[in-house]
Amino acid sequence: MLNVGLLGAGRIAGVHATAISTNPGSRLAAVSDFIPENAQRLAEKYQTTARTTDEIIADPSIDAVLIATSTDTHSDLIERATAAGKAVLCEKPVDLSLARAKACQVAVASSGKPVMIGFNRRFDPNFAGLKAAADRGEIGKTEILSITSFDPAPPPVAYIKISGGIFRDMMIHDFDMANFLMSSVPVTVSAAASSIVDPAIGAAGDFDTAVVTLTYADGRIAVIKNSRRAVYGYDQRVEMLGSEGLLQAQNMLESTVVKSTTAGVTSAKPTYFFLERYMPSYAAEWAAFVQAVTLGKPLPVTLADGVAALAMAEAATLSAKSGKPVALAGVAG
Amino acid sequence: MLNVGLLGAGRIAGVHATAISTNPGSRLAAVSDFIPENAQRLAEKYQTTARTTDEIIADPSIDAVLIATSTDTHSDLIERATAAGKAVLCEKPVDLSLARAKACQVAVASSGKPVMIGFNRRFDPNFAGLKAAADRGEIGKTEILSITSFDPAPPPVAYIKISGGIFRDMMIHDFDMANFLMSSVPVTVSAAASSIVDPAIGAAGDFDTAVVTLTYADGRIAVIKNSRRAVYGYDQRVEMLGSEGLLQAQNMLESTVVKSTTAGVTSAKPTYFFLERYMPSYAAEWAAFVQAVTLGKPLPVTLADGVAALAMAEAATLSAKSGKPVALAGVAG
Amino acid sequence: MLNVGLLGAGRIAGVHATAISTNPGSRLAAVSDFIPENAQRLAEKYQTTARTTDEIIADPSIDAVLIATSTDTHSDLIERATAAGKAVLCEKPVDLSLARAKACQVAVASSGKPVMIGFNRRFDPNFAGLKAAADRGEIGKTEILSITSFDPAPPPVAYIKISGGIFRDMMIHDFDMANFLMSSVPVTVSAAASSIVDPAIGAAGDFDTAVVTLTYADGRIAVIKNSRRAVYGYDQRVEMLGSEGLLQAQNMLESTVVKSTTAGVTSAKPTYFFLERYMPSYAAEWAAFVQAVTLGKPLPVTLADGVAALAMAEAATLSAKSGKPVALAGVAG
Amino acid sequence: MLNVGLLGAGRIAGVHATAISTNPGSRLAAVSDFIPENAQRLAEKYQTTARTTDEIIADPSIDAVLIATSTDTHSDLIERATAAGKAVLCEKPVDLSLARAKACQVAVASSGKPVMIGFNRRFDPNFAGLKAAADRGEIGKTEILSITSFDPAPPPVAYIKISGGIFRDMMIHDFDMANFLMSSVPVTVSAAASSIVDPAIGAAGDFDTAVVTLTYADGRIAVIKNSRRAVYGYDQRVEMLGSEGLLQAQNMLESTVVKSTTAGVTSAKPTYFFLERYMPSYAAEWAAFVQAVTLGKPLPVTLADGVAALAMAEAATLSAKSGKPVALAGVAG
Repeated sequence: MLNVGLLGAGRIAGVHATAISTNPGSRLAAVSDFIPENAQRLAEKYQTTARTTDEIIADPSIDAVLIATSTDTHSDLIERATAAGKAVLCEKPVDLSLARAKACQVAVASSGKPVMIGFNRRFDPNFAGLKAAADRGEIGKTEILSITSFDPAPPPVAYIKISGGIFRDMMIHDFDMANFLMSSVPVTVSAAASSIVDPAIGAAGDFDTAVVTLTYADGRIAVIKNSRRAVYGYDQRVEMLGSEGLLQAQNMLESTVVKSTTAGVTSAKPTYFFLERYMPSYAAEWAAFVQAVTLGKPLPVTLADGVAALAMAEAATLSAKSGKPVALAGVAG
Repeated sequence: MLNVGLLGAGRIAGVHATAISTNPGSRLAAVSDFIPENAQRLAEKYQTTARTTDEIIADPSIDAVLIATSTDTHSDLIERATAAGKAVLCEKPVDLSLARAKACQVAVASSGKPVMIGFNRRFDPNFAGLKAAADRGEIGKTEILSITSFDPAPPPVAYIKISGGIFRDMMIHDFDMANFLMSSVPVTVSAAASSIVDPAIGAAGDFDTAVVTLTYADGRIAVIKNSRRAVYGYDQRVEMLGSEGLLQAQNMLESTVVKSTTAGVTSAKPTYFFLERYMPSYAAEWAAFVQAVTLGKPLPVTLADGVAALAMAEAATLSAKSGKPVALAGVAG
Repeated sequence: MLNVGLLGAGRIAGVHATAISTNPGSRLAAVSDFIPENAQRLAEKYQTTARTTDEIIADPSIDAVLIATSTDTHSDLIERATAAGKAVLCEKPVDLSLARAKACQVAVASSGKPVMIGFNRRFDPNFAGLKAAADRGEIGKTEILSITSFDPAPPPVAYIKISGGIFRDMMIHDFDMANFLMSSVPVTVSAAASSIVDPAIGAAGDFDTAVVTLTYADGRIAVIKNSRRAVYGYDQRVEMLGSEGLLQAQNMLESTVVKSTTAGVTSAKPTYFFLERYMPSYAAEWAAFVQAVTLGKPLPVTLADGVAALAMAEAATLSAKSGKPVALAGVAG
Repeated sequence: MLNVGLLGAGRIAGVHATAISTNPGSRLAAVSDFIPENAQRLAEKYQTTARTTDEIIADPSIDAVLIATSTDTHSDLIERATAAGKAVLCEKPVDLSLARAKACQVAVASSGKPVMIGFNRRFDPNFAGLKAAADRGEIGKTEILSITSFDPAPPPVAYIKISGGIFRDMMIHDFDMANFLMSSVPVTVSAAASSIVDPAIGAAGDFDTAVVTLTYADGRIAVIKNSRRAVYGYDQRVEMLGSEGLLQAQNMLESTVVKSTTAGVTSAKPTYFFLERYMPSYAAEWAAFVQAVTLGKPLPVTLADGVAALAMAEAATLSAKSGKPVALAGVAG
């Protein structure tokens, strides 16, 4: 039984609290938050105790921490928790600064403790199913990967300003998905981006629409499309062409009801909210963490994966600004 | 090269004229019609001659006739044409009277000439494909057959009155489809019917909505649904459950365009008009006729098939009126 | 907060225990079972106490009981629990005997306590969504209802023998679905049935394949298809034709992955197991019960609904054996 | 009635011959070919005469020519036919040399005769339907366009060597589709390409796999994916994201048959051959040409459109080789 401290008590922390409590191999031992009342509320709901982050990290009975705090605290907390001997699952991204994330990676390496980054989409049954089919060779040798990832609506511009930009904040999920599905990192990153959805996003120095092309050493190509706005819902699709076929993971729909009238044949929309879409992935992610930590097996997503995705975000940011492809090696260093 | 006389010059005759002209093994030698001007117009379009029906039947250079006249003339024309030594393809139904159709069958048998009934849907690539898959054993032993067959809009009540009723006029196609797909005729026919679409149809002594259940000697069951009105288009679907799976033939859509908006995900409607839906089946039907007649092979749809479907229509009419299942043997005699 | 006693500790009781515990308006106060060890195990998992059924019914602090015991105990437990002043949610069917179910209905009426029957499929988001769209008039006036309900595999013959037969054990869900979607009961019930899937089921006096046609006073028609075996999964579909369109609720698939190869375009199968398919419906059913009981509102599914479905099952059984339509009024009395 | 001379008698010329003969406003007056026997054979089938190209161009009774000869003859024949006063429909591409195509454009301009380039996909009912929906504003302002265009199998390497390369030979259709759907030409063209399907294609100096990103002055982005091999059929899809929704044109399938077994739910594959897929587009293209020429209206696809697509192919070729985005203005001159 893994005793777990949950750092952070916001919306996504609530999702993790359910996963920790429900999993037969873990127990929610304590919750902390920057705002103690939030920690208190979550602790009551899950019949556990609210404590400070310092107390949780100092408590030798806590085996693992799940870090669901704001991004700027991730690297520090990862370092402190591993130094205190705990296994860590940390929400993405590791950090907005690639240099800081790399420093964290070095620090953690010396601790020898396992750190997993919360790229939950790898555990989505659809994407995981596609990957498993590809790994079984069902479409032969892979050639072209396409990822469509559109949010239903843009966040407030105030958030955009502190987000690190569309590549670090939004496409980072898709960079990791590409690394997961291609089983390697690209050689070059080439971005085209604009702020066609909302000029205010452009005025804030960011993009809301982006297409990134990744090239691989063996000739494979991947393309990722992002938009901050797809009014019909959360559009999350992958397709992979191989020498023997095509694999697609399509959208989850709100229901299976279809209506045929003089106006056409109308199905339900894709689920609108990321928690609806990805809820099963959080439980599966946590289960994979618990199993790996408990059995001493390698983690399915590592701190190195977090750093790799961040390097790609950095390269894409540079490419979008320069209008030229960027060699990943030059960025990842 | 089969020299063909086309009897009738209406809408469906025009479809057949194209098939006859286009097929490399047949030539449209003459056209006749009750209204000579219609025959003349069609003859000009296809660069052939308009003649009387009598002349066509009497002409020894005509190898085959295609009968596309009004239903009440079918039996007589089949008998006269076969007596004159011609192969015949006759539009469905053979006759509205089962007794007359059976008499025709007897008369034709003595001539020894091949007569095919125009159940064109057997040649629709989708239904033919489903049948071929079932015959290859792809779903094992068949158990339940379901046929959905809805017209987009009811015909005028004036037509309803002379149509022979929904079972002889509309469901007869589905009875033949059941015989085709099940490769045998049923034991009992049980109908539930009403005039819920348009009370005027009920006042004319007919139904516009009907569900017929067919039972087979070996325990299989078929169900046919008819409605005179499906506002979204011509709804023509089949599904067949077997011991190892399910086969479905779905609707043909007007296009592959899909629109996703806040209102839902909207596809094109089924094709609205039967000629759009079944156009490819007419050419395939004619090709099958030409091939069988030319090679002296058995016809894929026989006069006996026409009589069998008519007997089922008769049984369904009796069942709908009595509210009880009707044994087909008692009707088919 | 509703204090709930759970009677029964089998597989479906476990599903209900989760719903009771998770719902913010209810608390799992006690569990009983015919086999005390089962009750004990479930009680531990949900941190509550195992007691005898007698103790639970006698305890005035228990507000409601959920009856998830074997069918032959339902009527007695409903009567005892309501007599003891408790609200009741009882798994379907009320009883295998229509007479006994009617007697139960009379007994309960005098208690004035609310009794809901667990027709959980009414709470499935897809079927509920279809019903809501129909109620909003999105397809005009309804005309034909079709229900396809195939189990993935037949139960053991030993179970078949005590099941009450396919109409009481399996199609009863579909009878209730028809009543739910048509908002009225039929006038006649006409069944065609066979044991084509497994002759051993026929030898046990039951059917494994059945098609039932229901006619309504206003001319509407419904058709229900049941098979004990659909090897591709749990096939649960509804479609409803109306004067202005068609509504369909299609199958839930195991994933959204689609593979295109030289062999065709292959999607995932329907979910195989009823708990996968209907899991969300159990939580929604319980939420509806808690809300109605707490607010003193009418229950969404009543004991009368349970009796109506049972009467239809009785009529279908008679029809399948006699080969004739049966008037529901003659059975329902 | 437009008297038409058909230059070329190969496979695609046969398709055009049918369209010319069937169209009520045109007549196939003569056919020529490099190999006179081919012209003779086609002439017989369509009951017209075989002549030399010189005779056809010199004949004042010929109103229009359809050029379906090899690419290297297109520019010359366009110039000669327009100089002789004829309207022209010429198969794509105008020329493999952008300079030559531009010279042709200048020459034709002085003739004042209408020249249409055979980008038949604009007339495909699915793509035309998508464009019409976008033009009606059904998805608001367009933002991202995606074109997937995969051939079922690569052509022989011998053909590859004289094809002008994947961008001029294959993606040129997609460049025109982008121009059609976006209603403007891009600012930059950025290509990533490899020969991962067949190294022999790479050895021949060409690519078999390519992803091209187009950026537009107003911030819109388009991405085109090409592969020479999609074993499951001819994969031709478009999707367009707008401020109010998404439009997709999906593949045409070989049939509507769906099979559900323990192996999954399998639909038919996309049509395999381009003539199956695009057959209706050729008739519609010809009808549009006849109508415009007859009424003296502007042609729906112009020589300028052919030059624009060719310039994009040139830019893409440069970009794929240099690894850098190319400004279209620098190429198009």
